[in-house]
Amino acid sequence: MNFTLREMAERLQAELIGGGDAVITGVAGIDTAREGQLTFLANPKYAQHLKSTRAAAVLVPPLSAGVHFEHEDLPAGLPLLRHPNPYYAFLQALRIFHPPPPAPEPGVDRSARIGQRAHLADGVHVGPNCVVEDDVSLGTGTVILAGSFVGVRSVLGAGCLIGPNVTILPGCTLGARVRIHPGSVIGADGFGYAPYQGRHHKIPQVGGVTIGDDVEIGACCAIDRATMGQTVVGRGTKIDNLVQIAHNVQIGEDCIIIAQVGISGSTKLGDRVTLAGQVGVIGHIEIGAGAVVAAQSGVGKSVPPGGRLFGSPAVEFARQKRIIATMHSLPEHVKTIRSLEKRITELEAALGSKTP
Amino acid sequence: MNFTLREMAERLQAELIGGGDAVITGVAGIDTAREGQLTFLANPKYAQHLKSTRAAAVLVPPLSAGVHFEHEDLPAGLPLLRHPNPYYAFLQALRIFHPPPPAPEPGVDRSARIGQRAHLADGVHVGPNCVVEDDVSLGTGTVILAGSFVGVRSVLGAGCLIGPNVTILPGCTLGARVRIHPGSVIGADGFGYAPYQGRHHKIPQVGGVTIGDDVEIGACCAIDRATMGQTVVGRGTKIDNLVQIAHNVQIGEDCIIIAQVGISGSTKLGDRVTLAGQVGVIGHIEIGAGAVVAAQSGVGKSVPPGGRLFGSPAVEFARQKRIIATMHSLPEHVKTIRSLEKRITELEAALGSKTP
Amino acid sequence: MNFTLREMAERLQAELIGGGDAVITGVAGIDTAREGQLTFLANPKYAQHLKSTRAAAVLVPPLSAGVHFEHEDLPAGLPLLRHPNPYYAFLQALRIFHPPPPAPEPGVDRSARIGQRAHLADGVHVGPNCVVEDDVSLGTGTVILAGSFVGVRSVLGAGCLIGPNVTILPGCTLGARVRIHPGSVIGADGFGYAPYQGRHHKIPQVGGVTIGDDVEIGACCAIDRATMGQTVVGRGTKIDNLVQIAHNVQIGEDCIIIAQVGISGSTKLGDRVTLAGQVGVIGHIEIGAGAVVAAQSGVGKSVPPGGRLFGSPAVEFARQKRIIATMHSLPEHVKTIRSLEKRITELEAALGSKTP
Repeated sequence: MNFTLREMAERLQAELIGGGDAVITGVAGIDTAREGQLTFLANPKYAQHLKSTRAAAVLVPPLSAGVHFEHEDLPAGLPLLRHPNPYYAFLQALRIFHPPPPAPEPGVDRSARIGQRAHLADGVHVGPNCVVEDDVSLGTGTVILAGSFVGVRSVLGAGCLIGPNVTILPGCTLGARVRIHPGSVIGADGFGYAPYQGRHHKIPQVGGVTIGDDVEIGACCAIDRATMGQTVVGRGTKIDNLVQIAHNVQIGEDCIIIAQVGISGSTKLGDRVTLAGQVGVIGHIEIGAGAVVAAQSGVGKSVPPGGRLFGSPAVEFARQKRIIATMHSLPEHVKTIRSLEKRITELEAALGSKTP
Repeated sequence: MNFTLREMAERLQAELIGGGDAVITGVAGIDTAREGQLTFLANPKYAQHLKSTRAAAVLVPPLSAGVHFEHEDLPAGLPLLRHPNPYYAFLQALRIFHPPPPAPEPGVDRSARIGQRAHLADGVHVGPNCVVEDDVSLGTGTVILAGSFVGVRSVLGAGCLIGPNVTILPGCTLGARVRIHPGSVIGADGFGYAPYQGRHHKIPQVGGVTIGDDVEIGACCAIDRATMGQTVVGRGTKIDNLVQIAHNVQIGEDCIIIAQVGISGSTKLGDRVTLAGQVGVIGHIEIGAGAVVAAQSGVGKSVPPGGRLFGSPAVEFARQKRIIATMHSLPEHVKTIRSLEKRITELEAALGSKTP
Repeated sequence: MNFTLREMAERLQAELIGGGDAVITGVAGIDTAREGQLTFLANPKYAQHLKSTRAAAVLVPPLSAGVHFEHEDLPAGLPLLRHPNPYYAFLQALRIFHPPPPAPEPGVDRSARIGQRAHLADGVHVGPNCVVEDDVSLGTGTVILAGSFVGVRSVLGAGCLIGPNVTILPGCTLGARVRIHPGSVIGADGFGYAPYQGRHHKIPQVGGVTIGDDVEIGACCAIDRATMGQTVVGRGTKIDNLVQIAHNVQIGEDCIIIAQVGISGSTKLGDRVTLAGQVGVIGHIEIGAGAVVAAQSGVGKSVPPGGRLFGSPAVEFARQKRIIATMHSLPEHVKTIRSLEKRITELEAALGSKTP
């Protein structure tokens, strides 16, 4: 599948600068692109690669976007496609050259088990060895891949892609176009026990999990059901691998939760929150909309909207950077303290000797 | 299913204060309870909700329990149930209004595979696509849910609830009433290699895993088999999701291990130890009975019984709080050091100028 | 299965010192060995157990190896086997007394699903409820255990051991003798989205995963496919449980990645890198060959070959040890600062009072 650069410019709604007849045969990163491939420059730190790239053309931001390089600096004749968001345009190009594999054939594999009163809408695919229990509802075109389990009364919207080997326990609700990667578990019991007479007594976990439209959940994640009510993941939120979401957590829309994050019970995240990898969040707090927490941080208190946090325990980002800088020079500061102590002692002696 | 408050008081063995004829239709948290619902107050920080709650009645601790609020402060006529442990009583109320779903029908699904000489006691349920290998023993009423695997010679006690999609490898021993949530893996090989001539040579992992009665293990956990001997999880211990227990770890009874904890090889935990979320514990140490380790801590040395630790590397809890407080004001301390240095230099100059 | 100590010496190529007729019935750790068992001493800190061990003989290093204990210090008549690498020799002894269980019978279980044009070499075993999709290739003697999934066009070399309940998604390439423990997921989509008009747009992940010979991957790991190109795990690398390897990561040969480590996208590890438990590594950096990163560290910058790092953010190991030591005495340092301040103020007052 080949296109001229002019055709690509049209499809990507990008401004063509030079070389419209070049034939584009694929896409690649700026440092790995080969002849005939389209690449992109979104991050100025990769601008150095512009001179050596073998790509046939480069998607670049508008001159006004603050990615500093000059057209004249480019290899003579390297054509450009200008687009307000080169990364997004590149994503579109990727889709053009790598169309998704065709959806699995609608139908239920002969080895799959479908419960009573389960409702399977048009175009649903249920793969080998899946179990879809009683009273489950699967929306139009939803695909359940091999070895996955959907418990009684769970409801999945249209266009979901689940599995293989995913477990959705009873009574969970998923919106449309939810994707859940292998090994993940939705709706396991929240971790709640009442201590009584020296033993831990299990608190029944009778709530559910509600997941909004367009949520994506990575591999080997655990999203627990609520004790009462619902654990909620808002529309458009993306969750990486090996993430722990405890009971009664409420996650807003369009959040980004990177791998190995853990969020404790009943905590609330506003919309567009970003938690970087391995962050831990204590229970029963609120993280305001748009907040960003740096990797490995431990959040022990509520965070205002737009807050930027870092450290364990986490404080304001720039503050933590300063604390770390100071911490990393601590041994020198301690030396200074010792030398000051010595100088003071000498001063005291000198002054004392002057005192009658 | 409705009860009068008087009936609830009897069932929960709580002292009724007012309003015995009120009809209780369910249970809920103090801030979400609606008319007719019973709620509870165990934590004084929620006492503020007492005035606004729409609950029909509140489970409260005895006046002597240090949860400070006055009966007169309550909305006029809000009935109370006094109980020594309101949280535990609430758990009982939850069970009354949300009885567990009926156990799956005894029997082996036609798609399940049962090995030779496997012993299935009365009331055992084995779900679709399960594999129960040769010489396995399943105790009375034990339930193995869809897609789970129980390897040769593993022994499960009575009343266990396993799965779906759990993997129990060969030669593991589980007590009675053990619950293992989906995605967890019991008895994978410990991580052991001998370096020799520049390569890592696998140490055979020929031990097993022994799990005591009433243990609960969350989703996506990994509990490795011992190199030799047994990896042990003691009776009544509760393990949250995504926890790593390495080979030859020995965990005592009634411990609480929160999500994403990792315990390295051969470490021993006494009884009633609590490890909060994302804690890491080095190998070959002992954590004494009743010790508590705060979230994200890294434990590098043995901990005495009753120890309270925090930080990475972890030190005594109150000490770490002080260290953190100091660390968070480090930039100011460094400023102070600089200003002291300046003042000393001035003093030295002043004193020098006075010296003949 | 018993052997004389003389026979063991021959099999292990160890030097026999005394007691060649002793009958060896098994192997065990130095503190748990019983009569008739062979044990080993590799770590001087266990030398104290030499006097009390009930073992029949001990594998020890050469006198020159720096494990300090004297033959005379041993219980009278305790025979020794000297070997340049007692741990490796012990591993061999373990294999002699605990030979691996026989490989599963070659063949495809009747409940397994084999796709079109799948190539199964001689001796392949595919267990119950496995799905092997179209165009998959399985090398000689490879074993796929119950409930595992191998997606279209994936290629596995000879002698692999996969599962149970492992998911290998389409288009992954595994070398020979790769072992993947239960619950792990190879080839899930990398976590990549382009923000555009307030939403996160999924970047198609069209690359694959390439895993070298003799790699072992623990339970519940996630190794994502590349956006374009390949995520690579080099020959001989060993990965513990619950590890996250993001898209386009390149891992060298013979690395050791301990449990719960997370490696972010596009990062490169050289050969023989060790990452201890719960380490996090940022994306787009390089960790040089032979580098060692201590537990719970956060690596935010490239690391030179042979680097030893510790801390979050990680710095040179010895430096971090000093920083921690200083940090742990911070409250005392602050007290010193306060007292210096007081002394300076007094000096200033004294000096001022002397100034006319």
